Amino acid sequence: MIKIAIVGYGNLGKGVEQNLKNHSDIEAVGVFTRRDPKSVKTLGTAVYHVDDLFDYQNKVDVCILCGSSKNDLEEQTPYLSRYFNCVDSFDIHANIIAHKRNVDKTAAESHHTSLISAGWDPGLFSMNRILFEAILPKGQTETFWGKGVSQGHSQVVRSIDGVIDAIQYTIPDQKSIADFKKGEVIDDKSKHQRHCYVVAHEKDQQRIEEEIITMPHYFADSDTSVFFISQESMNEDHQMMPHGGKVLRYGQTNVETDHLMEFNLQLDNNPEFTSSFLLMCARVVYRMNQRGDYGAKTILDVSLKDLSHQTEDELLSHYL
Amino acid sequence: MIKIAIVGYGNLGKGVEQNLKNHSDIEAVGVFTRRDPKSVKTLGTAVYHVDDLFDYQNKVDVCILCGSSKNDLEEQTPYLSRYFNCVDSFDIHANIIAHKRNVDKTAAESHHTSLISAGWDPGLFSMNRILFEAILPKGQTETFWGKGVSQGHSQVVRSIDGVIDAIQYTIPDQKSIADFKKGEVIDDKSKHQRHCYVVAHEKDQQRIEEEIITMPHYFADSDTSVFFISQESMNEDHQMMPHGGKVLRYGQTNVETDHLMEFNLQLDNNPEFTSSFLLMCARVVYRMNQRGDYGAKTILDVSLKDLSHQTEDELLSHYL
Repeated sequence: MIKIAIVGYGNLGKGVEQNLKNHSDIEAVGVFTRRDPKSVKTLGTAVYHVDDLFDYQNKVDVCILCGSSKNDLEEQTPYLSRYFNCVDSFDIHANIIAHKRNVDKTAAESHHTSLISAGWDPGLFSMNRILFEAILPKGQTETFWGKGVSQGHSQVVRSIDGVIDAIQYTIPDQKSIADFKKGEVIDDKSKHQRHCYVVAHEKDQQRIEEEIITMPHYFADSDTSVFFISQESMNEDHQMMPHGGKVLRYGQTNVETDHLMEFNLQLDNNPEFTSSFLLMCARVVYRMNQRGDYGAKTILDVSLKDLSHQTEDELLSHYL
Repeated sequence: MIKIAIVGYGNLGKGVEQNLKNHSDIEAVGVFTRRDPKSVKTLGTAVYHVDDLFDYQNKVDVCILCGSSKNDLEEQTPYLSRYFNCVDSFDIHANIIAHKRNVDKTAAESHHTSLISAGWDPGLFSMNRILFEAILPKGQTETFWGKGVSQGHSQVVRSIDGVIDAIQYTIPDQKSIADFKKGEVIDDKSKHQRHCYVVAHEKDQQRIEEEIITMPHYFADSDTSVFFISQESMNEDHQMMPHGGKVLRYGQTNVETDHLMEFNLQLDNNPEFTSSFLLMCARVVYRMNQRGDYGAKTILDVSLKDLSHQTEDELLSHYL
């Protein structure tokens, strides 16, 4: 059994714990939190303060870091990689190379292995983009996101004066998808629609809608719709965390020979799916570390044989 | 530049030559054929007799073997792997483990690297099946094939007495796909329809149709339709080699949390796409061999970093 520590117990940490039952070769040593351990209710996993993590150095094979990229992982992954093998879901695209360098320094020196930026984007979508383009070097790739909640855009709407509660869904434009699949050039601005569900007093609604749809960078260039709803409706109909999207490659091997590769993802619950991906990566990190492959890794360094819990002969017999 | 030999010049060998323009780091030393070299017309690549291949041992990095699994590869890949790095598209599913063992023996001994069973199924579809199940261990996977030509079924129809020409298309059943995507159990027998286009004299048609739709193993259990057409229509409308299909995984992370992963492939031309995949694998084989990773490999042993022609920093910047 591969023994993991769950570091952080928000949506992602909860997802990791809850997904353990589906990954039969992995078990949890404990949840490690910055909060008072007594205040944290798990599904059964023991809870410790994160400061006590170092007492478990010999009992933990891999730490799954479930904090946020901005506030936690940028510091935490390089720091903990000196003492543990780690998996994180660092997703600030522009900083991934720097983050990998930082993690590599401490992990390689201390003979640990840490896989960064795991999840579905970056992660699974990245894998598809790279694979598709390697197979068909001539062509175009597009990514569509949604239908799903954008945390950043939701936050921005919530910060508008008078907004009591809000959520923003990103919705892929079906016509753009269909056009791209026919090999047509599509306009980046029309790829997605943005639907904002907002709780606000009636007197503020007109101003709020105006502020949203004209907000530069976030909404002004998009096809944005604003729907005012009650707090009850918000609580009842908008608490799921669906997401998904698709990666498409339309490529050519010859003048009139076109091919389409398409990867689609439809998630009922974004953090639950992501945490299942992180558990798979814990297995990879454990195996790489066992064979002396140290340092910072990404999903690009990994073979499918390493990802699967099955033996090579099982894979060759049943999947090839 | 990675230097390849194209061994065999049927549809696949032609596809490899024609795809070289899209793989900028790979060039061909020659086409090697069992036929009289003077009788083979290429797009410009030099043609030699396959017996002369050994004269090029120091000039060829990787041989791409473009013969058929049954008649050629079973013998050829183990034999040539003693002298060359090789890529083949061996696709007799039941014999892949034995084939890998045979190739491994000669390749490992002689410090060569040979990747077997490359293509889209086995190959790209296998990758998706394994990846999907590693991410979501709880769930069901289904593969649908088509719309595309089944060579085996076409051959069987052509062998019926009175059939002048024939082609069989496998067509995925849209209702089965939709049902599976909703998490419903589907019947294996209704997953595909089979459409046979047959050229035959009118007096034979009724008997031929009867023989086709009642043929055990091939058609009796399927939803089969037979269409009689003229030889002219066969020559005009049925010479393309489209194919494709999809791999679906419907999985759960929790009691009421379902997720769908879907890979779709639509090919205008099956051998052209496959040969582009083989060229990508030639790059992998070259790199593995350069770093001393010898023996028989499959696509399961390969990392995405090895598949891509781009540098790791380019991949991390633009794709992650």
